Amino acid sequence: MNKHAIYHITDVPYAYAKDTNTLCVRIKTAKNDINRCILHYKDRYDWVNPFKAKDMKVVLSTKLFDFYETEISVYRDRYRYYFELIDKDGNRAFLDDRGLRDYEVDKKEITSFQYAYIAPDDVYKESSWLQESVVYQIFVDRFYNGDKSNDPEGTLEWGSNVTPTSMFGGDLKGIIQKLDYIKELGVNLIYLTPIFKSSSNHKYNTADYYDIDSQFGTIDDAKELVSQCHKRNMRIVFDAVFNHSGSDFFAFQDLLKNQQNSKYKDWYLTDGYPVDTEKINYYTFAVGISDMPKFNTENKEVNDYLLKVAGYWINEVGIDGWRLDVCDEVSHRFWQLFRKEIKSKNSNAVAIGEIMHEASSFLKGDQLDSIMNYPFKNAVIDFFAKRIIDADRFNDILNNSRTSYMDSICRQMWNLIGSHDTSRFLTECNDKVERMKLAIAFQFSYIGVPYIYYGDEVGINGGEEPLSRGCMIWDKDKQNHELLNLYKTMINIRKQNKELVYGSYNSLYAKDNVLVFERAYNGSKVIIAINNNYEETDVSVPAKGKYKNLINNKITKIDGDIKLSSMDFLILKVC
Amino acid sequence: MNKHAIYHITDVPYAYAKDTNTLCVRIKTAKNDINRCILHYKDRYDWVNPFKAKDMKVVLSTKLFDFYETEISVYRDRYRYYFELIDKDGNRAFLDDRGLRDYEVDKKEITSFQYAYIAPDDVYKESSWLQESVVYQIFVDRFYNGDKSNDPEGTLEWGSNVTPTSMFGGDLKGIIQKLDYIKELGVNLIYLTPIFKSSSNHKYNTADYYDIDSQFGTIDDAKELVSQCHKRNMRIVFDAVFNHSGSDFFAFQDLLKNQQNSKYKDWYLTDGYPVDTEKINYYTFAVGISDMPKFNTENKEVNDYLLKVAGYWINEVGIDGWRLDVCDEVSHRFWQLFRKEIKSKNSNAVAIGEIMHEASSFLKGDQLDSIMNYPFKNAVIDFFAKRIIDADRFNDILNNSRTSYMDSICRQMWNLIGSHDTSRFLTECNDKVERMKLAIAFQFSYIGVPYIYYGDEVGINGGEEPLSRGCMIWDKDKQNHELLNLYKTMINIRKQNKELVYGSYNSLYAKDNVLVFERAYNGSKVIIAINNNYEETDVSVPAKGKYKNLINNKITKIDGDIKLSSMDFLILKVC
Repeated sequence: MNKHAIYHITDVPYAYAKDTNTLCVRIKTAKNDINRCILHYKDRYDWVNPFKAKDMKVVLSTKLFDFYETEISVYRDRYRYYFELIDKDGNRAFLDDRGLRDYEVDKKEITSFQYAYIAPDDVYKESSWLQESVVYQIFVDRFYNGDKSNDPEGTLEWGSNVTPTSMFGGDLKGIIQKLDYIKELGVNLIYLTPIFKSSSNHKYNTADYYDIDSQFGTIDDAKELVSQCHKRNMRIVFDAVFNHSGSDFFAFQDLLKNQQNSKYKDWYLTDGYPVDTEKINYYTFAVGISDMPKFNTENKEVNDYLLKVAGYWINEVGIDGWRLDVCDEVSHRFWQLFRKEIKSKNSNAVAIGEIMHEASSFLKGDQLDSIMNYPFKNAVIDFFAKRIIDADRFNDILNNSRTSYMDSICRQMWNLIGSHDTSRFLTECNDKVERMKLAIAFQFSYIGVPYIYYGDEVGINGGEEPLSRGCMIWDKDKQNHELLNLYKTMINIRKQNKELVYGSYNSLYAKDNVLVFERAYNGSKVIIAINNNYEETDVSVPAKGKYKNLINNKITKIDGDIKLSSMDFLILKVC
Repeated sequence: MNKHAIYHITDVPYAYAKDTNTLCVRIKTAKNDINRCILHYKDRYDWVNPFKAKDMKVVLSTKLFDFYETEISVYRDRYRYYFELIDKDGNRAFLDDRGLRDYEVDKKEITSFQYAYIAPDDVYKESSWLQESVVYQIFVDRFYNGDKSNDPEGTLEWGSNVTPTSMFGGDLKGIIQKLDYIKELGVNLIYLTPIFKSSSNHKYNTADYYDIDSQFGTIDDAKELVSQCHKRNMRIVFDAVFNHSGSDFFAFQDLLKNQQNSKYKDWYLTDGYPVDTEKINYYTFAVGISDMPKFNTENKEVNDYLLKVAGYWINEVGIDGWRLDVCDEVSHRFWQLFRKEIKSKNSNAVAIGEIMHEASSFLKGDQLDSIMNYPFKNAVIDFFAKRIIDADRFNDILNNSRTSYMDSICRQMWNLIGSHDTSRFLTECNDKVERMKLAIAFQFSYIGVPYIYYGDEVGINGGEEPLSRGCMIWDKDKQNHELLNLYKTMINIRKQNKELVYGSYNSLYAKDNVLVFERAYNGSKVIIAINNNYEETDVSVPAKGKYKNLINNKITKIDGDIKLSSMDFLILKVC
């Protein structure tokens, strides 16, 4: 038995409450090493009855590891458990609170693991509406100009070249006018980059958290937008920048004016006085960005101010949650309070963090509901766009990434392939549409929330910022209909087949540039086969029987072998 | 390279802030597998300079694993890092956010691990006073009767047989009168079992959280006790029962009286109405204990009530913290609020949980400062008292246990060998004092806070509850002076030699029944050698030079070999 591989801890995602009466228990073992993995468990106060035994099942595998899992339930939700492992050679080992041992656990009642109680206020409530979403990100200035009267001075002609300071006149009325377009696409969740008063076109340097920027519209426009979304059964989240303010935010202005005498001197993190925007002797977002001074969220006044903002827009305007900018540079403690605040206003509201790396400490259930899944994007680019990793590595990167989180969180991840902060995906593909098509097919059939950066669906390209922030193409003749149709098809397939939302992910083949996997849910299965090769390929897979091709609705038979055309994919539902 | 052994996550205890400018990074590898482990790191916004490299050191080893660790610091406290591992055969591997790979990380800036920012409000502040403490637990009714006037009816003669309902008259005045005894012992932290109004002798069924039980004294007595402790440079913590109340607590009484119309009906967890103490149709502590109804701490009113209690006794009476009964059956969320509340009253106040198992989810820094270390007690009993595990297994259980926590937390663990909830240690030893002496020597030289259950120091024995709650022996002729002197000696040695408080733990020998280890701190070293054999033993250890025997202050020379008498120990400080 590979003892070094075995790992368990009484914490997320190895032990956590699925609901107030169900404990989910997971253990890590070496890949293909264990024949049977048994969870022995009981009520922690039951001194009379023996432990019950339950066989665990592999729910996730990486190249190195298998993850066994099961769910248990006991009287009054107080648990005691230990593991029994039997490897392929019949060797047995036991894991309990004292570690791994070769012999039967003798003092089960003393040395077992304990999940002492499922406290209802600690239970993470997953969001099925979020899991069933398809996100559409809008960079407001570049989407649609619905109201020329609020165009700022120097507004450029729609579609002309983009510079870091360009303004194109996109606004809230424009989004409202295009909601039917978004709805028709199949999207049901819109995410807007910031719309609060701010001097820049991106508006990540907030001047006023309570005011809509006049070039985007008014608070009434915002309310109308939210209401029109809800009327169409679409949800909408705004973008909150709570890591830093703009330098023209009242508190920072007061600090600049009154320096150490400012009432707001503890709202920021300064190196000394005088605070100086030339020297930048204060913490900012990133380095040298004088107009984005970092908040001191340890300060209770700042805390309270920002939490009030968070609640206000949910309460007053009815948004469905927040995307949280530079979330990982703000304290866990703040996000715990933030979660409590927004859920108190709307128990269905969600918090999605901008975190570009492994984020388990934010995703234990007491803070965020999801993050922008940049590790997903990076892997998709490397495999589909740049073709610098093979299917095996690609598969392993994604499987590995999921090992950090509860299943529910994995289903809520915002699986983007590009954003306003990256090059456009089509450009990453060197404008080869066939590559992007495969990536989309994968994105919509993988675990997590598919995410469209406005315009990707019509073939907008563009390199790094500001080039990736080009104007939306509304001229149908200039739109890429091949991509647009694929997006619509994939969104529809995902909506019709809950396996793609809720199903487990089982890798069937991952070699060279071919990836075949299965999404299984409630006894039903969908097989996705992707040939990321510029040549026809035959693949042997453990699949036999009648399948429905979900792209063309034709019935096909498979007998352990799938034939894939060059740069093509199949989505097959077991009949 | 043993790839299955390698583990890191950007969370406690693998990545955490030691202070606002220092990140502690840890990685797990297979024991003796790695030759060099290098941490490559940089400021996460530094796009110009290359990564810096720092060799990591083994800080903890178990039978299966080595734990490498180092501390790093970067501009503005925002980190990016990855690991390079070179095994004994010269094979290299790299670990980053994408997992383990055999080849050099190519996109370091994209796929590195990130500890995005050390948020000051998330930094755990360790408690040096707690780490330097020696705890003395007093079961109040059995310690000393200092005021006969408040003895309850039926008070028994001091020292007579104990039953579950016996009352012996011990009280707060009694403790005050014996503070000099405790002080002389060398103790500097007293922990009292509950003293609030309650019908039982143990008082874990609280009737009034604001009132001292009249058989123990008055609030003025409590203030006097705290003040007299502080005058002697001793600290004192009380016992809070926040998992449940007594059935005579006003809220439960109101519930019984008014049933579903009670204002307090949501303070408890009921199965239905009428709530009935015969049927026990409500959640209680353990099973079938009708007079300990479990609080619904999800209820904000309950929350606020209990937090106010917690603050009151710190503010009004000046206690130094709380020991928290059945802590693991109350929510993490509650303990986060609790921590905030008590630290706001006294930033030096501490929270110690009664948790009898692996407790990492409570000890990440946002909740407790310490727990009652029952896994330590169980291991000490098995090795020293019952002699059913060998030194190797004993050593591994303890090393394994420390892998779950930050170093600071390990130093704050309350390392008990017995309490009011267990048999007396001497009884576990079958009354063989020589076994207990070795256990004490170990307890006071291991990592964590040594803990004396009142009377253990004078040789009180007794089996399970209520037998372990016998009256303190004050008659000097009946006290065991061999034990008493050893306690005094060991406390003094620990106070004089900070290696025993702050030093690392390095195992030098752990075989059969012999344990030799080193505690190293600031370049100074103490070696502890324990022979848990009923015969003389020679042990080869990697130790050479002049040492001072801390028990008798004699200088001795060691040349790679230590001779130990039957059931004896040595504590040697490198000269």
